[in-house]
Amino acid sequence: MAEHGKAKRGIPPKSDFNAWYPAIVEIAELVDKRYPIKGMDVWRPYGWKAMRCIDALTHREMERTDHEEVCFPLLIPEDLLEKENRLVSLLKRAREEGVDPGELRVEEEEAGFKKEVYWVKHAGENELDVPMFLRPTSETAMYTMFPLWIRSHVDLPLKTYQIVNTFRYETKQTRSFIRVREIHFFEAHTAHVDEDCASRQIEEDLEIVGHLMDSMGLPVIISKRPVWDTFPGAWYTIAIDVIMPNGRTLQVASCHHYKDQWAKAFDITYQDESGNTQFCHQTTYGMSERLLGAVVGMHGDDNGLIFPPPIAPIQIVLMPVAAHKSDAVIPAVDAAAAALRGAGFRVKIDSRNLRPGQKYWDWEIKGVPLRLEIGPRDVENGNAFAARRTGGKEPIPLENIVDGVHNQLDMVQTELNQRSRMHVDDCIIRLENLEQEILDGHIYEVAFDGSDADAEILEKTTGLAILGDAMESFAEDQQCIVTGKTTRRRQHIARMY
Amino acid sequence: MAEHGKAKRGIPPKSDFNAWYPAIVEIAELVDKRYPIKGMDVWRPYGWKAMRCIDALTHREMERTDHEEVCFPLLIPEDLLEKENRLVSLLKRAREEGVDPGELRVEEEEAGFKKEVYWVKHAGENELDVPMFLRPTSETAMYTMFPLWIRSHVDLPLKTYQIVNTFRYETKQTRSFIRVREIHFFEAHTAHVDEDCASRQIEEDLEIVGHLMDSMGLPVIISKRPVWDTFPGAWYTIAIDVIMPNGRTLQVASCHHYKDQWAKAFDITYQDESGNTQFCHQTTYGMSERLLGAVVGMHGDDNGLIFPPPIAPIQIVLMPVAAHKSDAVIPAVDAAAAALRGAGFRVKIDSRNLRPGQKYWDWEIKGVPLRLEIGPRDVENGNAFAARRTGGKEPIPLENIVDGVHNQLDMVQTELNQRSRMHVDDCIIRLENLEQEILDGHIYEVAFDGSDADAEILEKTTGLAILGDAMESFAEDQQCIVTGKTTRRRQHIARMY
Repeated sequence: MAEHGKAKRGIPPKSDFNAWYPAIVEIAELVDKRYPIKGMDVWRPYGWKAMRCIDALTHREMERTDHEEVCFPLLIPEDLLEKENRLVSLLKRAREEGVDPGELRVEEEEAGFKKEVYWVKHAGENELDVPMFLRPTSETAMYTMFPLWIRSHVDLPLKTYQIVNTFRYETKQTRSFIRVREIHFFEAHTAHVDEDCASRQIEEDLEIVGHLMDSMGLPVIISKRPVWDTFPGAWYTIAIDVIMPNGRTLQVASCHHYKDQWAKAFDITYQDESGNTQFCHQTTYGMSERLLGAVVGMHGDDNGLIFPPPIAPIQIVLMPVAAHKSDAVIPAVDAAAAALRGAGFRVKIDSRNLRPGQKYWDWEIKGVPLRLEIGPRDVENGNAFAARRTGGKEPIPLENIVDGVHNQLDMVQTELNQRSRMHVDDCIIRLENLEQEILDGHIYEVAFDGSDADAEILEKTTGLAILGDAMESFAEDQQCIVTGKTTRRRQHIARMY
Repeated sequence: MAEHGKAKRGIPPKSDFNAWYPAIVEIAELVDKRYPIKGMDVWRPYGWKAMRCIDALTHREMERTDHEEVCFPLLIPEDLLEKENRLVSLLKRAREEGVDPGELRVEEEEAGFKKEVYWVKHAGENELDVPMFLRPTSETAMYTMFPLWIRSHVDLPLKTYQIVNTFRYETKQTRSFIRVREIHFFEAHTAHVDEDCASRQIEEDLEIVGHLMDSMGLPVIISKRPVWDTFPGAWYTIAIDVIMPNGRTLQVASCHHYKDQWAKAFDITYQDESGNTQFCHQTTYGMSERLLGAVVGMHGDDNGLIFPPPIAPIQIVLMPVAAHKSDAVIPAVDAAAAALRGAGFRVKIDSRNLRPGQKYWDWEIKGVPLRLEIGPRDVENGNAFAARRTGGKEPIPLENIVDGVHNQLDMVQTELNQRSRMHVDDCIIRLENLEQEILDGHIYEVAFDGSDADAEILEKTTGLAILGDAMESFAEDQQCIVTGKTTRRRQHIARMY
């Protein structure tokens, strides 16, 4: 019967991940891809609830760390871009010429950025005097306002964030949550008195990343991206990558230390305690709906999604069984639901008039972590029958249903953590030398300490991209895989989404 | 000192409402209007938090009534508009010619709608094949998908909503929250088996409106809009208006009954129990950030905002007083804050090193409903000193702080309700005949049962606009103010925002 259900719904096996992923996001009703613009999916209620549960975790972390939520306009006038373009060009030249940016003079030049945005040049029947674009991210919009908000050192640190829709004119193949043209986006922007304070902000960001990834059961690789992959205008970029089941890495978050580079371009200054004018040091921290894509990819199986309990839109589905045989069933189900809701759980009662098998498949596909069945005999025994989406069934006492469910959900979370940890451990292989065969579905750990030219050799030989320096170096000396020189720099190379 | 504080912050007296309103929204840090696009303000943390508190009430009502939250793309391809344009043109002609829409043949014609949208015709360096526009509202986007989601009567009712940014190319003068170009918007869209079920949805919508307006302390006028002011494509429109302090009405919500008119244009059908194909009947219900504009306008005073407790971003500000004189003050403040937060209140501790007077002004301006001061003597007496933003001060026992605060906030809410009720009662005057003088700052109740031509006479003579039939008719026969014929139809005329 289970086979019948799966076949009916047409879920490909997860081992064929490139077929499984696009199928399951629609079969589980997370999104509908039939909207007539490519790369702009409709969020269906179940998918949107999942995203909002992830957002709720983010809001909680932001509140804990004294970030304040703002909401900036979507549209940005083109002329604001000039400052940004000059900054980016200057930093690019400095990098190419290997000199300090301060030594260079700003030249007018266009950044590549303009190629990736949607333009609003018309409104009603008018052509606009100043064209505007849909934000791909909000540096330009925000840093136009920051100088109005920051006067003195008492206004710092300024810690703001927003969760908004952003847009990118993708020309590559689009994939739900992973590469889309309208992006559900989180961005934190902070300003500080100096470089050290901004650096501590990056540390706090990584602590937040840790909490969030734990809740979602996502082991991550944290890397300092190579210079050529640093965010435009940033001093350095720290990226957080998830390894998807096909071995490709998915960047789900990134933190950027801007030093005072953007502040100089946008004239974001403050008066210090001695009354001197100083430039602010800034950071940003971004995440997106890719988090949901990572959750879908990491935890699902041949039968559908599996949601980690902290972000499951429905954490517990309650099923009355053979309710026609006993008047005690429905009241017991309602009482259990009330107790669980009272304890803050997200609960659904499924009393549809369908065969139990059909109901199981539905909730399996949707990845509800815990199913509780209550039938006449269960009521007599004072139990609910608990079935975990990750496997394993057992009765739990109705009398103490809240504690029992806590336990069950902890078991699901632990199991998901173990599986994803194991997936990552299996996936990462050490690359000892450039002759070693590169296997599909894996990412490689290397000792690498070469130049940009050496990096090109490494990438071309392996066909993989360098993620950058891992947070933890090797404990002992190694030999750089390209140059052979002694190093402890530990890096990963992978196929990136 | 209070005068000094007010003068420093430059709040005009509220009696000069047209000066007070634009000033207070910035002085209280709800928005920043200095963003370089007119009519697109930046939401500052305090304003955004207030809006999110209003949204939270809306989400709760939607959940209670089994609406499901979705999120549709912002961009709509131009070609989807054709169906809508044809529908609107047809209904307009039917109305003008006084015939049933079913008797008319559809003609190609452009709706006025296109004049009010922002266009995306370029992306990157390309001109798009099909131009797209930023949603002003989502009928077109949603009703393109509804036929894919609705197959049979078991899929009905379909009750969806979203809270998103929408756009309107306003050419009139913009005003924060009231008339803006990027709108924080709520829209519910439902589909039903027949007209009666859709009508019951409108009743449910009005019940929700009742709950929300109660929470915000906003007495409203509910009117069935005249035909010429009915939403394009709707059978009828029910609008919810707030009377602002200057006597102008502000439409803060509206519900539209579409019958099967949109369903016929978009081919939204279902199979009924007998297997016959039927058109759905639809409704929509919209609200926006105007709700916040109404709250600001209705409740504020010469000293700043006053937030009704259910939507106050900060409900209670706790102020330690003379903490240097007793070690017991700070722990007492912290304990009170913990107890209040535990009970679900939004609490802020203000331990800034400023004179108490300065702090008072800040929280007065921001409209925090309750201030609690705790000094050495208060701790000795086991009290906190409570000061309500609406006036009145008294000690409340620390031991039972949660109940005490509940009481205090109830008193604030009751006071706000009384004041706003009184404002409305003072504002509405009966207009007995067309010779009666029209006073500034008032709206008029009339008995009116005339034709469109009579309506034009009424509007031209008074210089006011007809809001439509009030929900409650006159209890006794009256004479129509224009035609003199006997009627119980009760209508309001007003200057509308």
